[in-house]
Parts: sequence; structure tokens; C-alpha cells
Amino acid sequence: MSLNPIDLLDYAGVAVFAASGALAASRKQLDIIGFLFLASVTAIGGGTFRDVILNLPVFWVGNSSYVLICAVVAVLVFFSAHRVESRWKLLLWLDAIGLAAFSVMGAAKGLAITGSPVVSVVTGVLTATFGGILRDLLAGEPSVLLRPEIYVTAALAGATLFTLGDLAGLPPLASGLAGFAAAFLVRGGALKFGWAFPSYKSRPGRRPEDIP
Amino acid sequence: MSLNPIDLLDYAGVAVFAASGALAASRKQLDIIGFLFLASVTAIGGGTFRDVILNLPVFWVGNSSYVLICAVVAVLVFFSAHRVESRWKLLLWLDAIGLAAFSVMGAAKGLAITGSPVVSVVTGVLTATFGGILRDLLAGEPSVLLRPEIYVTAALAGATLFTLGDLAGLPPLASGLAGFAAAFLVRGGALKFGWAFPSYKSRPGRRPEDIP
Amino acid sequence: MSLNPIDLLDYAGVAVFAASGALAASRKQLDIIGFLFLASVTAIGGGTFRDVILNLPVFWVGNSSYVLICAVVAVLVFFSAHRVESRWKLLLWLDAIGLAAFSVMGAAKGLAITGSPVVSVVTGVLTATFGGILRDLLAGEPSVLLRPEIYVTAALAGATLFTLGDLAGLPPLASGLAGFAAAFLVRGGALKFGWAFPSYKSRPGRRPEDIP
Repeated sequence: MSLNPIDLLDYAGVAVFAASGALAASRKQLDIIGFLFLASVTAIGGGTFRDVILNLPVFWVGNSSYVLICAVVAVLVFFSAHRVESRWKLLLWLDAIGLAAFSVMGAAKGLAITGSPVVSVVTGVLTATFGGILRDLLAGEPSVLLRPEIYVTAALAGATLFTLGDLAGLPPLASGLAGFAAAFLVRGGALKFGWAFPSYKSRPGRRPEDIP
Repeated sequence: MSLNPIDLLDYAGVAVFAASGALAASRKQLDIIGFLFLASVTAIGGGTFRDVILNLPVFWVGNSSYVLICAVVAVLVFFSAHRVESRWKLLLWLDAIGLAAFSVMGAAKGLAITGSPVVSVVTGVLTATFGGILRDLLAGEPSVLLRPEIYVTAALAGATLFTLGDLAGLPPLASGLAGFAAAFLVRGGALKFGWAFPSYKSRPGRRPEDIP
Repeated sequence: MSLNPIDLLDYAGVAVFAASGALAASRKQLDIIGFLFLASVTAIGGGTFRDVILNLPVFWVGNSSYVLICAVVAVLVFFSAHRVESRWKLLLWLDAIGLAAFSVMGAAKGLAITGSPVVSVVTGVLTATFGGILRDLLAGEPSVLLRPEIYVTAALAGATLFTLGDLAGLPPLASGLAGFAAAFLVRGGALKFGWAFPSYKSRPGRRPEDIP
């Protein structure tokens, strides 16, 4: 098991996304197995999607560490989440760290396999956002996608900066850290200060039955 | 970049599905990045699913045009959707064009790879419907699947007619146009005149907690 | 078409999951094509996911029997579901049989391909639960994941027992039957007697806007 910085980022991303999934399970008052399930789906969903799209062997099939990390994190959260004052806020901050880590990991794998900067940015964004989207869909939480603060943009910033750094010939550690920092600062700023783009305000959608 | 008629159908399908995704984003008052995200997922979701199932390289990984089309369409819709009187109706009509285009494209690829008419029809239906289902799920809209008018049936008509035409030895352009026309007429008739099959009317489902 | 016991379990699982999908369609008063669609997605969704993750050819692409089974079951349910007193209860019991069959099938395929017991358990659980999760998501039913009775645990029990039996050198029929029985008894007990693990009761989640 090699442990270069990019791999560490990967394990860290899995651990924090697993914790965010387990916190969603605690909000829904599921049992321990529900914690394991939501933690695993959240943590390995994005990377699974990335590997399937790139036609690579799925990362956790060849390395059981990932699934075991999810299991350990889920158990730890099961026995400690009641001590957390606002599980929703903690979930969002852990999600922000995972988002930053996976935007770099997803872009790095996409770029390594295809050499295409466009694919690199897209796989970065999908890897970073897909696990959280799945978590919210399965837990019946309001989707992080539809909330007003910046979310996908942070993943886009991280994936883009990593890709540009790599194209500019920076070493992987430097462009990886730059991408991680960019994504985390953007998402963290959105959480802390409510940063948001001007949204499409003109008119909210009507329900289909209200349209004449 | 070859531009035979089937490829054009593919680009057109991506563009109209992207527009339908962007209109869903405008109904939910998302920001520009939300428009890009929903447009891309809607437009390339069905084809991605098709390629993964057929174990082919995913179409947009090898050709960045698709992602760029989604980006351009999302930006155009962001700056023009407020001029549309009923975004929901426009969304449904664009969805109908995309449904027709992708029912043919999905069937063509499934038939070319496996030679099986059953697989051809199934991949046609899945390619045509999956992007719109994802869009509705992610945007929290009422799923087009559950609405009373004919939807999946239109995709089934297009995929089946294309497959039969191809088996009968028609040139791809002819069977492709026949399939496209069939799917669009069926779905368009459903939208315009409320066509619906006799549905399963006997009793609506009860909520689980109401069952003794 | 070989018909060893494991294959029979596979066909039986597809048939009962198809019936559960068709019953969900009847609860939502869909038309016959809606029955076909939900039956197919429920019945072949889990196995499709398993094969994609294991990088195998998707099982129903090479063998049309599966899709035809779904079609026949959907039509039968369309013409008979109104005679069933509680379609929701029947749906849950059919789902339990499918869950048990697919927990073994999924584990067997995962173990055969990778040799890893961890992967075997994970693919068993995912194969068994993914079809039902998709059915509930697409039909807008309360997700079986979030209900208090034991669900994922039953799949875990079946996949684990099969994997242990296989590692212990039991013949496939014996470990398969043991896994099937374990999963069905656990899930059946949950349905019949309301078995549930102690769930995470301390505090229900608040809505994000209620958090100060």
C-alpha cells in the first residue's frame, strides 16, 4: 500500500465523506447498519462513478482498505454523534473537505487516463459532488445541489486549478494542494459567509398544475 | 469529427436535453454553475448509462464537443429563460425532441454492439428516458415518469420502429428518421392532446401507516 | 441455457423483484408501459450495478430471458393486482424474497471474480438492495432504506453467510441455500414481528432553516 500525498488525500476524502454519510444516518435515526450503508455510499459513490466512466477497475474492488475505513468511521460516528451540537453543520463542513479532496483526486485520475483537460475537470466535479448528491437523495435530505450557496462551483475551482497546475508542469503535490485549497476556500467561504452567485431570480417555477 | 445524419441527431439530442436541464435549473432559481450542472447531467446522463451498460468507452470522454455543447446551451438559457412564458411547457417539448433523438441513438448503438433486437429496444428506452429522470430527481421536480401522459411508450415506439427498420434492411437514415418521427409524434400527441393509456385506476396506493 | 440451482435463484429473484416493481406501479396508477418500466428497473437494476462495478458484461445484455421475464411478470401483475388486498404488504414480501436471492447471487459473482470476501459481501448487499432503492426513488415511495425495520442487515446476513460457507469449502448449493435462508428469515422476521436494531434515538434531525 503506497502512501504518497495523493493517496492520503484519497483516504482522507473517503473518511470525511463517510462521516458526513453517517451523520445523515444519525439525523434520520437509522440503526448501525444504516450508518454503515449511508457512510459507504457517500464515501465511495463518487469515485465508483468516476472509475466506471473512465472504464477503470473500481478503486475499492481491488483495495479493501476503503470499505474498512467506511466501516470504522460509521461505528465511531454511531457512538459519538449525539455529542455534536449541530450535526447538520458538521456534516456540511466534512462534506466541504471531502469535496475539496475528491475534486483533485477525480481530476487527477481523469487527466492521467485521458490526457484531456475537459474530461479532467468533468471527472473532478462529478467525483466530488456525486457522493453527496447520493447521500442527500437516499437520506431524503434537501439536496445540497439546490441550496443557494456555492457548491458545484467549489468542485469546479479545485478541479480546474489542479488541471491548470498539472498542464503548467507543476509537481502533483503542488497542483494537488493548490486545487484542494481553492475548492475548500470557496466552499468554506460559502458556508461561513453565505457566498452565492447571483442566482436566477426572475420567477420561481410554478407547479405544473398551476400552468394554464 | 464526422457529421453523418445519426451524429447530427446525437448532437441535437444533447443540445435539447441540455436546454431542458437548464430550464429546470431556472425554475429552481439556481446560479450559472447549477445551470451547467443540470444541463450536462440531463444531456449526457442517458448516453453515459447506455455506454456503461454496453461496456463501451463513454461517448463524451473521447469527444469534448458534447460537454462544450452543454456549456454553451446552459449559458444561453441562463440569459434568455426569463423571456419564456412557460418554462415548464418548453422544457417538456424540448424533452420530447431529446427523447425521440435518443431513442434512436440508444437503439442504434445497442443493436450495433450486440446484434440483439431486445437489447436494442431496451438501450433505446433507457438512453431516451434516463437523462430526464435524473433531471427530475436532482431538481426535485415531479418525475415525468409518474405523470399520466404517455412518456416511456414514446421512447419504446421510436426504439422499436428503428430496430424493425434496421432488421428489415432499411438504410440507417430511413429507419432513424422513422424512429425519430414515431417517438416525437407519440410524445407530442400526449403533450398536445393528453393522450394516455388506460391506467391502473382501481385503487390509489395507501400510505404504509394507513394499512391495518 | 444452463439451469443449475444458482441460475434458478437468479431467475426467481428477477421475477419477484419485477413483481414488486409492478406492484409499485399499480399503487401509483401507472399505465402498462409504466408497469414494464418499473418492473424491469427494479428487477435488473441491482445486478446491472453489480456487473458494472465488477467490470463484467451486464448479465441481461447477453441473455434476453431476463428482460422477457420482467415483461411477462409486469403484464400478469397489471391484470391481477386489483385482486390483492394489500399491495404494499405483498410488495414487501416479494421484495424480501428478491433480497434474499440477490444477496447470494451478488456475493457469489463478487467472490468468483475478485476472490475477496470483503468485495463479496459488499456486492451481495448492493445487488440485493439497489433494485428496491431505485424502485422506491422512481415511484416516489417512502424508501425501504429509511423505514425502521431491518433491511440492509438481512442482505448483509445472506451475503456474509454465503461467503463464509464458500470459504469453508461448502458446495455452492449448500452455502447458497444457507445465505438465502438467513437473509429471508431476518427480513421476514422484521416484517412479521417488527424486528429492529436499537436505532439512533437521541434526537431527530432539524430542518436546516431551524438551526441557529
